[in-house]
Amino acid sequence: MAKPYVIGIDMGGTNTVFGIVDARGNVIASSSIKTGKHSDELHTELSRLITDNEADGKINGIGIGAPNGNYYTGMIDQAPNLPWPMPIHLAEMVTEKFGIPCLITNDANAAAIGEMTYGVARGMKDFIMITLGTGVGSGIVVNGQMVYGHDGFAGELGHVIVKRTNGRVCGCGRTGCLEAYCSATGVARTAREFLELRDEPSKLRDYDIEAITSKDVYDCAVAGDKLAKDIFEYTGNILGEALADFTNFSSPEAFVLFGGLTKSGDLIMNPVKEAFDRNVLGIYKGKVKILISELKESDAAVLGASALGWEVKS
Amino acid sequence: MAKPYVIGIDMGGTNTVFGIVDARGNVIASSSIKTGKHSDELHTELSRLITDNEADGKINGIGIGAPNGNYYTGMIDQAPNLPWPMPIHLAEMVTEKFGIPCLITNDANAAAIGEMTYGVARGMKDFIMITLGTGVGSGIVVNGQMVYGHDGFAGELGHVIVKRTNGRVCGCGRTGCLEAYCSATGVARTAREFLELRDEPSKLRDYDIEAITSKDVYDCAVAGDKLAKDIFEYTGNILGEALADFTNFSSPEAFVLFGGLTKSGDLIMNPVKEAFDRNVLGIYKGKVKILISELKESDAAVLGASALGWEVKS
Repeated sequence: MAKPYVIGIDMGGTNTVFGIVDARGNVIASSSIKTGKHSDELHTELSRLITDNEADGKINGIGIGAPNGNYYTGMIDQAPNLPWPMPIHLAEMVTEKFGIPCLITNDANAAAIGEMTYGVARGMKDFIMITLGTGVGSGIVVNGQMVYGHDGFAGELGHVIVKRTNGRVCGCGRTGCLEAYCSATGVARTAREFLELRDEPSKLRDYDIEAITSKDVYDCAVAGDKLAKDIFEYTGNILGEALADFTNFSSPEAFVLFGGLTKSGDLIMNPVKEAFDRNVLGIYKGKVKILISELKESDAAVLGASALGWEVKS
Repeated sequence: MAKPYVIGIDMGGTNTVFGIVDARGNVIASSSIKTGKHSDELHTELSRLITDNEADGKINGIGIGAPNGNYYTGMIDQAPNLPWPMPIHLAEMVTEKFGIPCLITNDANAAAIGEMTYGVARGMKDFIMITLGTGVGSGIVVNGQMVYGHDGFAGELGHVIVKRTNGRVCGCGRTGCLEAYCSATGVARTAREFLELRDEPSKLRDYDIEAITSKDVYDCAVAGDKLAKDIFEYTGNILGEALADFTNFSSPEAFVLFGGLTKSGDLIMNPVKEAFDRNVLGIYKGKVKILISELKESDAAVLGASALGWEVKS
């Protein structure tokens, strides 16, 4: 029988957040350290959290979400935002230190597992999670299983090409990726482009153009600024076209969107849904839901990672 | 224990071909009727084939590959090339008539299952089959399972948009689909476009331009015609770019290409592979094989459908 708790560890470029989670998806305790610290510190802090919450011997498994985390090998490799020499055999290290089985995957896959275990995708066997943050990530579930691919690196839908000619340079070194348009940084780039190319008045012109963020665009759009609204229209249109294409792959019951951009609500969701309906192949029309994650953003990463802790073989 | 034979039925717009197949993928007997005939005729002819080959009581299951065949519902619906009123509960009808369990799927999925059971994808858990015929179809395998999606209609990669602006009109009613460029008819359309837009000499100018086929293009390319070779270059480039994008989805071990266009060999495969390598995301580089099906084309459709006959629950 499974033990009553799991631990989720969300490893980011700056902070590593971890928490103890019960079977209903309640984060009963959490803490964090700087990611740059030595792994001993993670061990000390997490051990204390376990003991303080009388959870010794009650942890079923540990799940880690980390950039480029590979489910099959348990390793992190080629993750430019993490401050260690690569590759790291992280799952093995954690399993040994704690004597608790540990699984690892990338952050977007962890988000998808979290959504399936505790969130809006409960009961769904086929859905696609799209994370709209600094970058665009994805986690794909088919037949109730995560799609890891033959090498553990499946689900990089942020790097599908949406502009084949004159596309924006992407962080991956190629041009025209979805991520270069529909991430928070993509929205800021669109704002700068629109402000340069168009000469209509806009509240966005009061900001330092080089420092504009997607939050600034949101604030102006909510205040009724036409150009700011057009930026969301443009972004949502590209995302909706992309989701229509993704549907041809796995015919999902739903797309679940997560991350900062979804806070813009209808400003982004309406153009996404309209572009999706205009572009999706006839046989899928009216069948695919486009949903926003219901997980609390502060908990979601830890919850997602923790869900892997139910999968371990003890 | 499974019985020693399965039956595969490949239903096309004109002919319905069926055969008895053993566990090693040998088609031990086959026959065909016109698809337009009443289903009684299929029953009569197939029963005779079974009896003539002393296979009564030895058939494990019947698999059918048909346009828009739906694995979950056992139905065919909205298949414009089939000469019956839709929808048809085909799997149920066949199960009842023969007293043998029957499963159905679309032709491209059947091809993928055939490739996994008897062909070049044996032992692979993650691969994508691309059928390059009159249209472009696909069958996707993830974790060793067919991807059917939540409604049974997954895997329509021929209808991913490859030209977002000024794309060709596709049979599906939208514009810019992969199928409009990389099918046999797409190659013929490219030929007509190139002959109109360019004024260099070409052997293709000796043909009736409205009746040019992809076979004509192949013949001219093999004879060294520059414009004909450019047509394959153009087609292969679009296909290679598309396969690079598809890789982001399921990180397959291989793409398996099947159908008339693959007979053009290096003329098409070299540009496909070059465009793939140029366009694929860094983490996948050098990991994905692009293969040609090894199933004999005359047998492949029956073999693919027949492989479903091993899946049935008797």
